[in-house]
Amino acid sequence: MATGPRLAAARRPCPAGRAGATAQQTIREIGEVSGMSDEELRSACSRPRQDFEAIMETVGPLTEDVRCRGDDAVREYTRKFDKVDLDWVCRRMEDIAEPELPEEVKAAFDVAYDNIRLFHEAQRYEPLEVETMPGVVCRRMARPIGAVGLYVPGGSAILPSSALMLCVPAQIAGCPIIVLATPPRPDGSISPEVLYCARRAGATHVLRAGGAQAVAAMAWGTDSCPKVDKLLGPGNQYVTAAKMLLQNSEALVSIDMPAGPSEVLVIADGGAPADHVAVDLLSQAEHGPDSQAVLVALPDADVPAIQAAVETQLSSLPRAEVTRLALSHSKVVRAADRAEALRFSNAYAPEHLIINTADAEDYLPGISNAGSVFLGRWTPESVGDYASGTNHTLPTYGYAKMHSGVSLDTFQKKITVQALSRSGLGAVGPAVAKMAEVEGLEAHRRAVTVRLGLD
Amino acid sequence: MATGPRLAAARRPCPAGRAGATAQQTIREIGEVSGMSDEELRSACSRPRQDFEAIMETVGPLTEDVRCRGDDAVREYTRKFDKVDLDWVCRRMEDIAEPELPEEVKAAFDVAYDNIRLFHEAQRYEPLEVETMPGVVCRRMARPIGAVGLYVPGGSAILPSSALMLCVPAQIAGCPIIVLATPPRPDGSISPEVLYCARRAGATHVLRAGGAQAVAAMAWGTDSCPKVDKLLGPGNQYVTAAKMLLQNSEALVSIDMPAGPSEVLVIADGGAPADHVAVDLLSQAEHGPDSQAVLVALPDADVPAIQAAVETQLSSLPRAEVTRLALSHSKVVRAADRAEALRFSNAYAPEHLIINTADAEDYLPGISNAGSVFLGRWTPESVGDYASGTNHTLPTYGYAKMHSGVSLDTFQKKITVQALSRSGLGAVGPAVAKMAEVEGLEAHRRAVTVRLGLD
Repeated sequence: MATGPRLAAARRPCPAGRAGATAQQTIREIGEVSGMSDEELRSACSRPRQDFEAIMETVGPLTEDVRCRGDDAVREYTRKFDKVDLDWVCRRMEDIAEPELPEEVKAAFDVAYDNIRLFHEAQRYEPLEVETMPGVVCRRMARPIGAVGLYVPGGSAILPSSALMLCVPAQIAGCPIIVLATPPRPDGSISPEVLYCARRAGATHVLRAGGAQAVAAMAWGTDSCPKVDKLLGPGNQYVTAAKMLLQNSEALVSIDMPAGPSEVLVIADGGAPADHVAVDLLSQAEHGPDSQAVLVALPDADVPAIQAAVETQLSSLPRAEVTRLALSHSKVVRAADRAEALRFSNAYAPEHLIINTADAEDYLPGISNAGSVFLGRWTPESVGDYASGTNHTLPTYGYAKMHSGVSLDTFQKKITVQALSRSGLGAVGPAVAKMAEVEGLEAHRRAVTVRLGLD
Repeated sequence: MATGPRLAAARRPCPAGRAGATAQQTIREIGEVSGMSDEELRSACSRPRQDFEAIMETVGPLTEDVRCRGDDAVREYTRKFDKVDLDWVCRRMEDIAEPELPEEVKAAFDVAYDNIRLFHEAQRYEPLEVETMPGVVCRRMARPIGAVGLYVPGGSAILPSSALMLCVPAQIAGCPIIVLATPPRPDGSISPEVLYCARRAGATHVLRAGGAQAVAAMAWGTDSCPKVDKLLGPGNQYVTAAKMLLQNSEALVSIDMPAGPSEVLVIADGGAPADHVAVDLLSQAEHGPDSQAVLVALPDADVPAIQAAVETQLSSLPRAEVTRLALSHSKVVRAADRAEALRFSNAYAPEHLIINTADAEDYLPGISNAGSVFLGRWTPESVGDYASGTNHTLPTYGYAKMHSGVSLDTFQKKITVQALSRSGLGAVGPAVAKMAEVEGLEAHRRAVTVRLGLD
């Protein structure tokens, strides 16, 4: 029996992992989409394997320790991993001094705040009401999640933009408790840019810790840190492992999505300036050595020119070493036309999809899997990373096939409501009673018939 | 530093579990909401502890075996657990004969189909478009998930209603592959009622297996079963454990929500007829020995009459033994007024919330945590279980604090899109460049400045 191309995809070979990155230095070409079998396409779209098992073995006992010892454990791990002695672990925002920042920095983040706020405000859920039968009224309403824990990475870079992307929709949703966790700097302080964004966007608490210990503190609650209902935000493998572990635990906490290394897929035609395509690929690659940059080149795209522009620009980047590492497992694939480019892109399901073609708008109907899309010549990924208004917390690693990026929805639940009149119950009741009978649930049947006086 | 009542909730005592069910036979009273400290309220709202660790140890190797050996492994586990030899494991719906059913049974499920379809059609997502700055256009659009795996339990009961609740929104979303998995009956066949509902609601494949083996087959794909992107549906602890385990695995699959035993919380005033309240509690309790039924009694509610009605009705129920077991860990709590009733209900976060009071509608604004709400005298939970139009796949175990029930959204992703004009990039670009500079991401900055000719 034939059941199509999706079968048994990930099953063989077993249990061996996928091939790792090679050591090439320019972006290597891997062939044409048209010549690829479904199996080859899947292989071309696979990411470097993430093995969480070993990490879980470290993270499990650590989260359990934070559960039991609370702030003391957080202090201890912060001393160990961040080399910082914390006088306080978590504090209300109102008890933290306002950060000092240059006006032009504040102004830039204010532009981002306004645009993110506009786009996420527009996502507000209008309560729904449908009378499915006369006297049977069904409704659906949104409610904020009571307490959310937002992780903003620190370490090698500071990421105030992530504070905005996570706090703004929580603020709009009206979550009463918004804990922002971020690792302290070497002097124990929080980056003033992160603090500025968190305060502006309504964070109620700041947890001065990073890694799995911060995630565990928010999931279980400590003396100083509120227990949250949902954990969000990007992070390294320890942070991700802790989130994954805790969502399956007794902590009663959910997560936004599993996070992997950042990635971009650029579809380019001959009209896309080589240096623009190159800098878009590089701006993804500079995120970290695991980042993936994929170029889908249409027939008239000048791939050698793009390769050359990548090499030229690379040498002048401050993060050239990291960027070069990321490029070593990036790739170029050739597509004969729009349909083939979309076939590859949808199979890859990129976090970021840049369509740098003359007919960019025409791609939209055919896009089935992507985190966020950047259309046309004037839309680099970095506008979405910071300030266009869309959220930059997006599904990676192929999870764009089934996960959405963070949005206002991420901070709300939808609750359904039904209200029947006596005649409404009279209308739908007999069908309910029959179905309950079929399923052998007698009390379910009687809940209807007792009310209608039928028993 | 005081940080409010949410602190350190689940942390102490540690690592001991919560108290188990007692052996009482009527619904025991546990006191008044007004007298409860936050700690006592939490304790009163806690569910019997679910320990998945032992189950994971069984389920882990089983799912790995299905990953490696596919259909052969599914056949072997079905022989072992269901005592059935399968000639086929998974088949396209078009290759399965139409089931024969009495017309009145079909008619009842058709009523449910129509109402569920109406309410879920109304949940369609209208594409969003916002111009956040002149020339900066942000959009958001919905796309169906490519392949979904829907688990419909079998065993002691047949649950065609679950087939409807899972398939109808998948059908409306337009998911190209909809696999319905359900365990075979002793003669190897699928319940005709389940088949009728699955076919009516657009399932494309039927996987004739249950338990963790069915979940694993859908997550990894086998020779006969398509690999799915998302796993949904209720199930026993093995099914739930398999879903939880696989969402953290390399299978690249997400799940709807963690499922626990079903539960209801009924808020009743003096006008609620005792036999109606009793049958609503019983219709929850008859689901299984782990089910929870909680009664929040307002001052004028006649609790002894309700207790007596429970006892009277219980004796005539076919599932009396299971129902009595469930009642043994159910409870009654007294509330002085609406605010107290809501305080308890929101802390409990019930899957089903029945408000059988004269002022039912007035409760709505104060409900912050619940799966689905049943308002007024004429709205028993069973109408929502089957046919009002709302979905009966709902968060349990307190997960209504952060999860929504299944809806059309569950079968879609939302993809954001941005398209900037040259002037739009000119407007937002300087802020983007400044933020990239703050974060030390030079290629991000250049992706803007190169395009604008500023470098």
